[in-house]
Amino acid sequence: MDATAIVEGLALTARSAARTLVASSGDTRRQALRAIAAALENRSDEILTANNLDMQRAKDESMHPQMQDRLLLTRERITGMANGARQVADLEDPLGRILKKSTLPNGLELEQISVPFGVIGMVYEARPNVTVDAAVILLMSGNAALLRGSSTADASNKILIEVMRSALATTTISPDVLQLVPSDERATVKALLTARGKVDLVIPRGSASLIRMVVDEATVPTIETGAGVCHVYIDAAADLAKALPIVLNSKTHRPSVCNAAETVLVHRSVAEKFLPTLLASLHSAGVVLHVDPAVEAVAKTLDIDVTQATTENWGTEYGVLEMNVGIVDSLESAIDHIATFGTQHTEAIVTEDKESARKFVAMSDCAAVMVNASTRFTDGEQMGFGAEIGISNQKLHARGPMGLEAMTTTTWVVTGTGQIRS
Amino acid sequence: MDATAIVEGLALTARSAARTLVASSGDTRRQALRAIAAALENRSDEILTANNLDMQRAKDESMHPQMQDRLLLTRERITGMANGARQVADLEDPLGRILKKSTLPNGLELEQISVPFGVIGMVYEARPNVTVDAAVILLMSGNAALLRGSSTADASNKILIEVMRSALATTTISPDVLQLVPSDERATVKALLTARGKVDLVIPRGSASLIRMVVDEATVPTIETGAGVCHVYIDAAADLAKALPIVLNSKTHRPSVCNAAETVLVHRSVAEKFLPTLLASLHSAGVVLHVDPAVEAVAKTLDIDVTQATTENWGTEYGVLEMNVGIVDSLESAIDHIATFGTQHTEAIVTEDKESARKFVAMSDCAAVMVNASTRFTDGEQMGFGAEIGISNQKLHARGPMGLEAMTTTTWVVTGTGQIRS
Repeated sequence: MDATAIVEGLALTARSAARTLVASSGDTRRQALRAIAAALENRSDEILTANNLDMQRAKDESMHPQMQDRLLLTRERITGMANGARQVADLEDPLGRILKKSTLPNGLELEQISVPFGVIGMVYEARPNVTVDAAVILLMSGNAALLRGSSTADASNKILIEVMRSALATTTISPDVLQLVPSDERATVKALLTARGKVDLVIPRGSASLIRMVVDEATVPTIETGAGVCHVYIDAAADLAKALPIVLNSKTHRPSVCNAAETVLVHRSVAEKFLPTLLASLHSAGVVLHVDPAVEAVAKTLDIDVTQATTENWGTEYGVLEMNVGIVDSLESAIDHIATFGTQHTEAIVTEDKESARKFVAMSDCAAVMVNASTRFTDGEQMGFGAEIGISNQKLHARGPMGLEAMTTTTWVVTGTGQIRS
Repeated sequence: MDATAIVEGLALTARSAARTLVASSGDTRRQALRAIAAALENRSDEILTANNLDMQRAKDESMHPQMQDRLLLTRERITGMANGARQVADLEDPLGRILKKSTLPNGLELEQISVPFGVIGMVYEARPNVTVDAAVILLMSGNAALLRGSSTADASNKILIEVMRSALATTTISPDVLQLVPSDERATVKALLTARGKVDLVIPRGSASLIRMVVDEATVPTIETGAGVCHVYIDAAADLAKALPIVLNSKTHRPSVCNAAETVLVHRSVAEKFLPTLLASLHSAGVVLHVDPAVEAVAKTLDIDVTQATTENWGTEYGVLEMNVGIVDSLESAIDHIATFGTQHTEAIVTEDKESARKFVAMSDCAAVMVNASTRFTDGEQMGFGAEIGISNQKLHARGPMGLEAMTTTTWVVTGTGQIRS
């Protein structure tokens, strides 16, 4: 059987099963999530055994240690996933919200209500926790899930799906709303991305090459979750005592994630005062520095090794302890720089001047803009969503961290008493 | 110069000019729209002269009379476009709306505000009024517009854009926010659809083949505006006095548009009573009927010519006075039929039973569902949006009629006093 037939078959089964989700109350979905949480904990031995198979193969194939760490499940991590499911079960039901309501002059009652998408595909890498996290969010938002993980996590994903499906079997929700898409061949990703009309939405989570493939090949609507080349701009009116911890936190708190900062831009009028402390602090935090010529001159006086930043540097998402530092002549120059090199993810300004903040917010054209705060706050958990299925890097539908609400669409319900158009 | 270079150049110019829109107040944009309205009326002679060139060529090339009618501009139609612009100018500003607001435990203030997309492309056919209608909606929502009309309307589009740009020149908004994409070669459409990063959104309006091309080739995010195979389901508990005008209005009021109905499904328990009147009324309204065998039997007794509906018929958007009529055994069968043949546009139920209505609303999976009302109400104007740039046939971002709000995205603004993540 070819990949297209397999994926379309799974999508059809999932769509039919999704009717049990559409018909379900919030309480039924909550109960299902709690059943999943319990099942994950009760069957953790089986899960760990399966994960051990994946880990063994990963070691045999000399997988990068960081990737091995992402693949690894432990009893503690399983409890973490279970508690994540319980946390989502405690959130407000994203379905049936009345987003708009009005009565038209002809007496028609108009309501816009939130409804599920239907069938949502996820494409992701060797992180088995995503299998559970995504399934839980999609179930709570009333969607069937086609989960396409990585073949390197296949044993883990299979048991996790099996455990979740058996938990669903104790509820009125059909277990068929959860489907694992075979990961033994790359073609199933393509099949998922082109199952137009069968799959309502695909969300890719992963490398730049995966995202690029999605953009190029998808005919199904997708939400891009992508790269973050985030900036911190230190304004002329910055409180420098705030600026230093914000830059350090934005860069060093967790350099591998998309909301970490890659570049700091310092207004010329505070550069002399701020740069020595900034460079010394970044340097002692182990950050490799790529700088413009003016910053290089300052670094030299401090005996700090730096390299001149190239055009490529300014546009790079390092993901590690490397950072670009530049001086700008004005807020407008900072905005121009960000427009050129940013990825419309998160931009931060440090300033005590409200007008500068207002202008930066208006002009920075990104998913999230921070005023006097670390870029690391672009995060569903931090923003109080309770759960996050990814951070959208596009402007269509959802922008920034996506929680339950982002996994819903709407229907207009028009209720009349026989109205026709004249 | 190749099409890609041309389109990317226009997009760059438009994006730079869009800053004058982002910085503009609602009042400035309103003033610009009123200036456009006045200019359209003041320069109607020039517009009519240019349109006459297009019309002459259309006649020479024996364009279909219906398409000629769409291409034609008259003094009255120009006034209509001008009044449309004035109407949009009177609407609520879609920008700067605070969609969410909260204070996090760490003191961060979180706001989600509505902002423009940036640069939006429109691809459409030989309807010069779309050039003005789209420009007006995109301007009011703070977006620069790349308008790619049809080469057959090129003279009309050129003068309309020129008139609107000269009106903008009297305001603080740069005329460069309005760009006409050359229509002399098909390649500019492809270039627009693949100008990823340069164009934020493309909205196609037109034929099924255009939509299909967009789906297949676009790498820029798009909103599909598409086909409507809309159904009217006459429930067992229908008030048949309401049912008849609803079916007639849904089919015959304006058969060419996407919210016209193509199929009526009648519950078996009311078929005997309702079908004779229904068939006779449709027949005398000039509607060609495609029916299932049971309906055919009834038609025979009335001496009404019908043809048996094929699978293809049930899935066809006729756009003319043709309609499918079928009998279903239950509401669930109606929903199954709609799931198989519908296009998730508009579905209607006629019933006095609230539970049937509730079930139909929940299960019909479409942009708009009508309870005891004509399918023709899926329309921005009718729904009180004041303006409509198209009807979205997808679930991502916007579903159903799209007004000003649909042309905005959001930014999270996080305001702190130096907060970092621990």
